[in-house]
Amino acid sequence: MSQIKKRVSAAVFTPNRLEVLTDGVFAIVMTLLVLEISVPEIAQPLLQAELPRRLLELWPKLYSYVLSFIVLGLLWNLHHRSFHSIKRCDSALVWLNIVFLMFIALIPFSTSLLGNYGTEQLSMVIYTSNVLLALVMRLIIWTYATSKNRLVDSDISRRWVKVDKLISIGYSPVFLLVIGISFINVIAAFSILVLLLVIAIVMQLITRRLYQ
Amino acid sequence: MSQIKKRVSAAVFTPNRLEVLTDGVFAIVMTLLVLEISVPEIAQPLLQAELPRRLLELWPKLYSYVLSFIVLGLLWNLHHRSFHSIKRCDSALVWLNIVFLMFIALIPFSTSLLGNYGTEQLSMVIYTSNVLLALVMRLIIWTYATSKNRLVDSDISRRWVKVDKLISIGYSPVFLLVIGISFINVIAAFSILVLLLVIAIVMQLITRRLYQ
Amino acid sequence: MSQIKKRVSAAVFTPNRLEVLTDGVFAIVMTLLVLEISVPEIAQPLLQAELPRRLLELWPKLYSYVLSFIVLGLLWNLHHRSFHSIKRCDSALVWLNIVFLMFIALIPFSTSLLGNYGTEQLSMVIYTSNVLLALVMRLIIWTYATSKNRLVDSDISRRWVKVDKLISIGYSPVFLLVIGISFINVIAAFSILVLLLVIAIVMQLITRRLYQ
Amino acid sequence: MSQIKKRVSAAVFTPNRLEVLTDGVFAIVMTLLVLEISVPEIAQPLLQAELPRRLLELWPKLYSYVLSFIVLGLLWNLHHRSFHSIKRCDSALVWLNIVFLMFIALIPFSTSLLGNYGTEQLSMVIYTSNVLLALVMRLIIWTYATSKNRLVDSDISRRWVKVDKLISIGYSPVFLLVIGISFINVIAAFSILVLLLVIAIVMQLITRRLYQ
Repeated sequence: MSQIKKRVSAAVFTPNRLEVLTDGVFAIVMTLLVLEISVPEIAQPLLQAELPRRLLELWPKLYSYVLSFIVLGLLWNLHHRSFHSIKRCDSALVWLNIVFLMFIALIPFSTSLLGNYGTEQLSMVIYTSNVLLALVMRLIIWTYATSKNRLVDSDISRRWVKVDKLISIGYSPVFLLVIGISFINVIAAFSILVLLLVIAIVMQLITRRLYQ
Repeated sequence: MSQIKKRVSAAVFTPNRLEVLTDGVFAIVMTLLVLEISVPEIAQPLLQAELPRRLLELWPKLYSYVLSFIVLGLLWNLHHRSFHSIKRCDSALVWLNIVFLMFIALIPFSTSLLGNYGTEQLSMVIYTSNVLLALVMRLIIWTYATSKNRLVDSDISRRWVKVDKLISIGYSPVFLLVIGISFINVIAAFSILVLLLVIAIVMQLITRRLYQ
Repeated sequence: MSQIKKRVSAAVFTPNRLEVLTDGVFAIVMTLLVLEISVPEIAQPLLQAELPRRLLELWPKLYSYVLSFIVLGLLWNLHHRSFHSIKRCDSALVWLNIVFLMFIALIPFSTSLLGNYGTEQLSMVIYTSNVLLALVMRLIIWTYATSKNRLVDSDISRRWVKVDKLISIGYSPVFLLVIGISFINVIAAFSILVLLLVIAIVMQLITRRLYQ
Repeated sequence: MSQIKKRVSAAVFTPNRLEVLTDGVFAIVMTLLVLEISVPEIAQPLLQAELPRRLLELWPKLYSYVLSFIVLGLLWNLHHRSFHSIKRCDSALVWLNIVFLMFIALIPFSTSLLGNYGTEQLSMVIYTSNVLLALVMRLIIWTYATSKNRLVDSDISRRWVKVDKLISIGYSPVFLLVIGISFINVIAAFSILVLLLVIAIVMQLITRRLYQ
């Protein structure tokens, strides 16, 4: 009976609304990114001649749009996978998640900085730090929820928990390296960041298969 | 027992949150479209005389608002119908869906381009390509999920899967034709696009009935 | 067995995602309204003297903010109550609902018009028409879903369906009257509109009790 | 049998959509806050020299961003906890919740005021009043739902209901005190507000444990 009660209570105190809130924030941030790419204002007589050139000038903004969309996809999928295992919710989880969302909601600002002044080293540092802080918050959430099976099912694969944590911990030094390299060469740092994201996506595709 | 376990796991790894994220992006994109139609600024003494004329000038923006709303309705319904059959979720589906959302979130930009410079052939090509790319992504999602019943129930109607695929594949040459015609006559291309959307909506109303 | 199958299929083809999409659009429209009320820009030396006066000047915008929020609350609650009874979903319902959302998403524009040029008769006509069109769409949705119990449970209270329809039909002439009066006196029309909303809210509070 | 029917009806008339609407509004408000922090426009030749200084100038906006994010987190968690116990929904609850959302959706305006003119006493009064009004609405919702177990389960812990109410009632005089102090010293009032938020978060972490 105690078993049943425990289950019922676990079923009731689900992190369901926390997921809806998080999905909402991600959906809005993803969509706000496009507001950065504003249609150029051109006077009618010059329109036909100017439009192609002015649209081409938007490419750094389109570039940072795609980049941030992929970063958000990556972070959303990480959150999605954590919360697939997190079955219960407490106030600490809510607050950790709100701090996570605080960094997610900052991404349009960092993206705008990158889209406008992408060749500046400072933009690169702020953007990379923003993503790194979101990744660190997600690691803290995952560690908090899984330690002593606090908010996850007791039959969770310990191997997966460990693999997941190792991957997340692995990110930090690489991101710090990217920030370090940006002091020497911004373009090189940027290229490594893009490469890193590709590796991260491939890893997500592989580890999901391992887990299942 | 293995059967039961499989079912339970399938029930757990639902694409539910992917749907919430997608609905969120669609809802925001639909609502952001209205921001294009800004209330004209008129000085108080001229107000009564100027307001009707200035509001009438907004009609190309209202026109592209309605057009994009219908396009988004069409795409949302296609997604909705695919995911009615998609019961499981893996990382590849998440990433395909994120690329799909990337093209959906670009629609306010393309719409703004069309609302501002609708008579330009370049605006027409960008807008049509944007919608076409979203349709292609949706076709890829549907093909990936249904091939070998990867993420759909085994009792899914194969005939429906085929009909759905054929319709989606049929869109591409027609959209490419619209882009081709726009090189000759923008207004004609635009009219064909609108006609195409009407046909697509009628088709949705008919095929759903076939399916049920 | 056929009974069971029917039930299962009904459970599957729920209007659940349509509700999420609708809630998303309402949430965004409600929140976008506040963007109309922008903080005045005042130079530092004049700040203390100017700020109170400049904030007071915002009151027509605050007024239309509260008005539109209540209108949206009313429309959301109407939708919420309809969909409490609507258990199944077909393509026609999706498209009727998308047209409904098209009018909902226009409300920030109409509100902005009212907030800027509230004393103009044209603003009043556009705002009232926008709300009326949303109400009419909701009536069409309700009529479509309930006629021959198409998308509702067979044990639905026919009396409630009728009461609900009568109330909705009742709105139209009153709104048309408001538009008519606005040709004579804008302030009078506006006051009647506000009175109407108060009556509508009271009616919602009463009829829910009748229904339960 | 009557017992079962009651339960079924309670299950049906859930406040589920009200929660989705609320989560949507919170998610959007949280994300809109970042739009206040706009990337400075700097001419290319001055870029490297100006960017760090101009970004540092944004700190009051970043500060009010973090503050409002925490305030929204606090209010969301309060709503989340109330609605964990609220199992049924009626029109009065819908309307109380819509008024609650009206104050939530105003927070980007108040935050913008604070971010622009944070040293002005008037900004402080408006911001604090906005948060206080949201808290009061939440207290009214909680009182309405729990009195005579109107919308909550009959096995709800009466002790928790009382503790929750006492905490909420306790907020009001403290917020009024903050407003009072702001007439003497704005910085002192601001510091007390921040301290208050920290205490509120700690309280949430503690009371949840008491309740479980």
